[in-house]
Amino acid sequence: MKHDTIVAISTPRGVGGIAVARLSGDDALPVALRHLSVSSLESRRATYCRFDELDDVVAVYYPKGYTGEPTIEISCHGSYYVQQALLQSLIDDGARMAEAGEFTQRAFLNGRLDLSQAEAVADLIDSVTPAQHRLAVSQLRGGYAQKLKILRQQLLDLTSLLELELDFSQEDVEFADRTQLRQLLAILDSQITALLDSFRLGNALRRGVPVAIVGQPNVGKSSLLNALLDDDRAIVSDIPGTTRDTIEETLTFGGISFRFIDTAGLRHSTDHVEHLGMERSRKAVSQADIVLYLNDVTKPWAEPEIDLEGKAVIMVYTKADLLENPDRDGRLLVSTKTGFGLNELKKEILNQFHAHVGNNSSGDILLSNARHYEALKSVSRALDAVEQGIEGGLPADLVAVDLRDALYHLGTITGEVTSDDILGNIFGRFCIGK
Amino acid sequence: MKHDTIVAISTPRGVGGIAVARLSGDDALPVALRHLSVSSLESRRATYCRFDELDDVVAVYYPKGYTGEPTIEISCHGSYYVQQALLQSLIDDGARMAEAGEFTQRAFLNGRLDLSQAEAVADLIDSVTPAQHRLAVSQLRGGYAQKLKILRQQLLDLTSLLELELDFSQEDVEFADRTQLRQLLAILDSQITALLDSFRLGNALRRGVPVAIVGQPNVGKSSLLNALLDDDRAIVSDIPGTTRDTIEETLTFGGISFRFIDTAGLRHSTDHVEHLGMERSRKAVSQADIVLYLNDVTKPWAEPEIDLEGKAVIMVYTKADLLENPDRDGRLLVSTKTGFGLNELKKEILNQFHAHVGNNSSGDILLSNARHYEALKSVSRALDAVEQGIEGGLPADLVAVDLRDALYHLGTITGEVTSDDILGNIFGRFCIGK
Repeated sequence: MKHDTIVAISTPRGVGGIAVARLSGDDALPVALRHLSVSSLESRRATYCRFDELDDVVAVYYPKGYTGEPTIEISCHGSYYVQQALLQSLIDDGARMAEAGEFTQRAFLNGRLDLSQAEAVADLIDSVTPAQHRLAVSQLRGGYAQKLKILRQQLLDLTSLLELELDFSQEDVEFADRTQLRQLLAILDSQITALLDSFRLGNALRRGVPVAIVGQPNVGKSSLLNALLDDDRAIVSDIPGTTRDTIEETLTFGGISFRFIDTAGLRHSTDHVEHLGMERSRKAVSQADIVLYLNDVTKPWAEPEIDLEGKAVIMVYTKADLLENPDRDGRLLVSTKTGFGLNELKKEILNQFHAHVGNNSSGDILLSNARHYEALKSVSRALDAVEQGIEGGLPADLVAVDLRDALYHLGTITGEVTSDDILGNIFGRFCIGK
Repeated sequence: MKHDTIVAISTPRGVGGIAVARLSGDDALPVALRHLSVSSLESRRATYCRFDELDDVVAVYYPKGYTGEPTIEISCHGSYYVQQALLQSLIDDGARMAEAGEFTQRAFLNGRLDLSQAEAVADLIDSVTPAQHRLAVSQLRGGYAQKLKILRQQLLDLTSLLELELDFSQEDVEFADRTQLRQLLAILDSQITALLDSFRLGNALRRGVPVAIVGQPNVGKSSLLNALLDDDRAIVSDIPGTTRDTIEETLTFGGISFRFIDTAGLRHSTDHVEHLGMERSRKAVSQADIVLYLNDVTKPWAEPEIDLEGKAVIMVYTKADLLENPDRDGRLLVSTKTGFGLNELKKEILNQFHAHVGNNSSGDILLSNARHYEALKSVSRALDAVEQGIEGGLPADLVAVDLRDALYHLGTITGEVTSDDILGNIFGRFCIGK
């Protein structure tokens, strides 16, 4: 297959000391050489030369680059003008502007990465916390893909056993060893269950651990959120692309991102519809891993109106500055006015995270991608059907249909099975130039 | 001199496919190798390796890099986390965060660039228009520095002639050939005058050509500015770092930046102090190269209340949409409602620019830097003193004082003469990482 030549700036948007343009495709080298002041580029040697009359650049040629195709990387001055003009020259010369993620998509299509690794590249680039980074790197380096490959092989083994039976089914002989089938199914099931269970942690690490702040009106929910944010302003403001809306704020400490959901905000946004506000609070709590239940320390204890069962709940006593003698008495006292207790609160949030969310039974490998989670659930359902089919004495060819279904869904994760829709969704998430 | 090792991200701030960290200093190679999964780096060869457990990177070693020192460039994934963590690891290991422009400052201190070329690097990176880019490239490639070097040599020749005389002055013999002195002075003077004259164009190209919009109240000054801006929104919004304040807007067309000064804005901002507003309008006009004088086409012609002598004035008739029969009658009619005439207006602005500002007698080399302009004016003043001294029969040792003064000021441009203050001012303008 002929690969047309695509080009993009791969460094972040904006102005800086240098920028890097990446060119990939079968004709990448001749296209680049028509603009460079050298007649050839030695493989992988950084070559100082001129790009037209535009700029002095350093060009590197990779016969098989990141995409698996001939690739040229050109480091130019990072001005707005040079970046635009350099791209324009290459586009005028037959290269095409790369779409978001198209370099990585080519790496996938050329067999350099499987689909789960390609997705890890996007996660890696989006990483802000050490935990997000570790997740993405582990997925990129293939431990995860390896695990899926083993699952796939086990599924194929199952299918072979079953097909053996199919071959002989006309003669009404039941060849496949049902005990072996059941054993294989049990192993697969436990592995898939462990991966599915790891999604809660993986997803929390990747997207931020959801923490709901609840309590009576005027107990200081928004103030607490603001105080926590203020305390970490330096970190937060440095993070590009952090989502901020009225009801959710992301805050990073201890290497973990926490998504704080201020249910006061939820209630305010619904104004007069008090009932609806309560519904939203309930929903926020149900989605949270950790709940901060706030009490005004100067008022009598109020029972939570929301079901907190199964959640890691931290009781927080607010307005500690109003106490004459701040006797902790085992309570977690905070004051958003003086900052008293905020550090302890963060420590307790981290403790609860490690105790309730951070334990993981699937070893090093965490499922963190919602698409993979859905696919694995489909695999799991198909295997349930296989098991029931075997138990119920279904004909092998019908059982085989469910098995193929399981294989199909597993294949969508790593990309053995794919569609333009899936690829479009995945690579559309990427930035241009990767 | 020992060069400590400095490090910075040289690509634009933010998140992208890849980012490049640059490390420079005598120990750059050993510092980098302690973190890379290879035991050595071949000169200028792009080497794929791992940086600690953090990321898979491509490292390139330049024994004499941009700074003139051992330099390593490490391309990593452009995530927030990877960029921060990679810098932190190198800093923990003895490298120091580079200050703004420090790489280029080292290139200057190590004799790789003269000071005017170092300044051109900052201009190059700030370039948004083709004209700004050409100016910076020409200054960077050294034609300008070469011209200054010739001037310097001519000044040194003058000094030699004068010193010859000084040696013999005790014997009351006047050796120096006054005719030759005067000839040299005349040549120097004409060259410096041409350079000083080119500053108007150079500065206009670099900073944008100042265009004042004047006219009676309610003639549509702000509407015209907004209509022009709207028309070019796509270009403007793409330009990072474009200065925007209430009274000045930059707009680029025909490859030239124009700084539009809306004197309506000036007047509004002073509210009741009408007199002061008029003063500001006068000042805006006096600083402008081109003046758009607006008339309401439906009203009688109003004489300008401001002296427009010596300016390139374009008469613009606004509110053309109110005319039943838009008969141009040789007039430049515009309507900000329909967009009528806006393209013609831009064409006329470009014409006026080329006719009144864009002519240049100093050949290819344009003076565009205000610091150089001030220094060259000082050179010029010192040479005037030299000339008067020679005419007035001043003793040669007194004339020599003025000559040394001229040499000193010329030297501040290219950096033969410098101070921490000058360097601080110049390199403080740079971005980090260059």
